[in-house]
Amino acid sequence: MQKIEHLGIAVKSLEVSNPIFASLLGVAPYKAESVASEGVTTSFFQIGESKIELLEATNPDSPIAKFIEKKGEGIHHIAFAVTDILAEMKRLQAEGFVLLNETPKRGADNKIVCFLHPKSTNGVLVELCQEAPADNQ
Amino acid sequence: MQKIEHLGIAVKSLEVSNPIFASLLGVAPYKAESVASEGVTTSFFQIGESKIELLEATNPDSPIAKFIEKKGEGIHHIAFAVTDILAEMKRLQAEGFVLLNETPKRGADNKIVCFLHPKSTNGVLVELCQEAPADNQ
Repeated sequence: MQKIEHLGIAVKSLEVSNPIFASLLGVAPYKAESVASEGVTTSFFQIGESKIELLEATNPDSPIAKFIEKKGEGIHHIAFAVTDILAEMKRLQAEGFVLLNETPKRGADNKIVCFLHPKSTNGVLVELCQEAPADNQ
Repeated sequence: MQKIEHLGIAVKSLEVSNPIFASLLGVAPYKAESVASEGVTTSFFQIGESKIELLEATNPDSPIAKFIEKKGEGIHHIAFAVTDILAEMKRLQAEGFVLLNETPKRGADNKIVCFLHPKSTNGVLVELCQEAPADNQ
C-alpha cells in the first residue's frame, strides 16, 4: 500500500454537502463523476496526496443508500493506492482477507478497484485502487 | 487543511488488530501510546504522508468504548493537519462548524488537537491536528 488514495464519505445530497466540505477543507471539488454500475454520483476534493470522495446514491438499491439507511451519513470506506492490484489481491487473500471482487472492477476517477470484506478488517470497508491501465480506459 | 494527518479506527483489542493492520498495510506499527485523559491506547502505522491510528478503550467510559458499543468496530474519525490550529478553529467556527473543544487539547503523537461536532460535518467526526509547540511538550 503506497498511500491513502481517498476516503469515501456517504452523503444524502451532494448539493448540500459539497459546500460543507469545500468550506471545511478550504478547497473546491475538482470533479464530479457518476458511476452507474454502483448507483452513485461522486464528488472529489484534493487534500495533500489524498482525496475526499463524497458519495450520493442515485437509486434506493445503491450500496450508499443502504449504508445511510442503516448507519446514517458518514465515512463509508478507505481506499489505498497500490501499484499492482492483482498481486495485492493475491497476497491479501493468502493472508486471510476476504475479497469482495474476484477480479478488479472499474471505479471512479480512472481507477480499477477491489473491495475487502469489512469482517476481515475490523469493520472497515477497504478498497484497493490502481490507476487504470491504458487498455482498460 | 494540509493533508490527512491520520485516520482513527476503533478496535476492541490492539493485540488482535495490530497484526491484522500490519498484514493489510504491509508495515509494522511504529509506536504505541496511551492517552490517559481520553481513556485510550493507540497504535500508529505510517502509510504515505498519513497514518492509521488504531484506538482501544482502556475503560468502559472511554469515547471509544461507547462508539464500539453503539456502532461496532470501524472508522472513528479523520484528522487533518493544520499549521495554525487557533486560526483554523476561528475560521471554521465563523463558517458555522461546531467545535467540541474551546481550546486545543493535548492529543497523541505530540499533537495539539480540536474536534468538530459530526452534526456539522455530515456525520463525520473531524479532528484538527497541529504539531505541539515546544513550550507545550
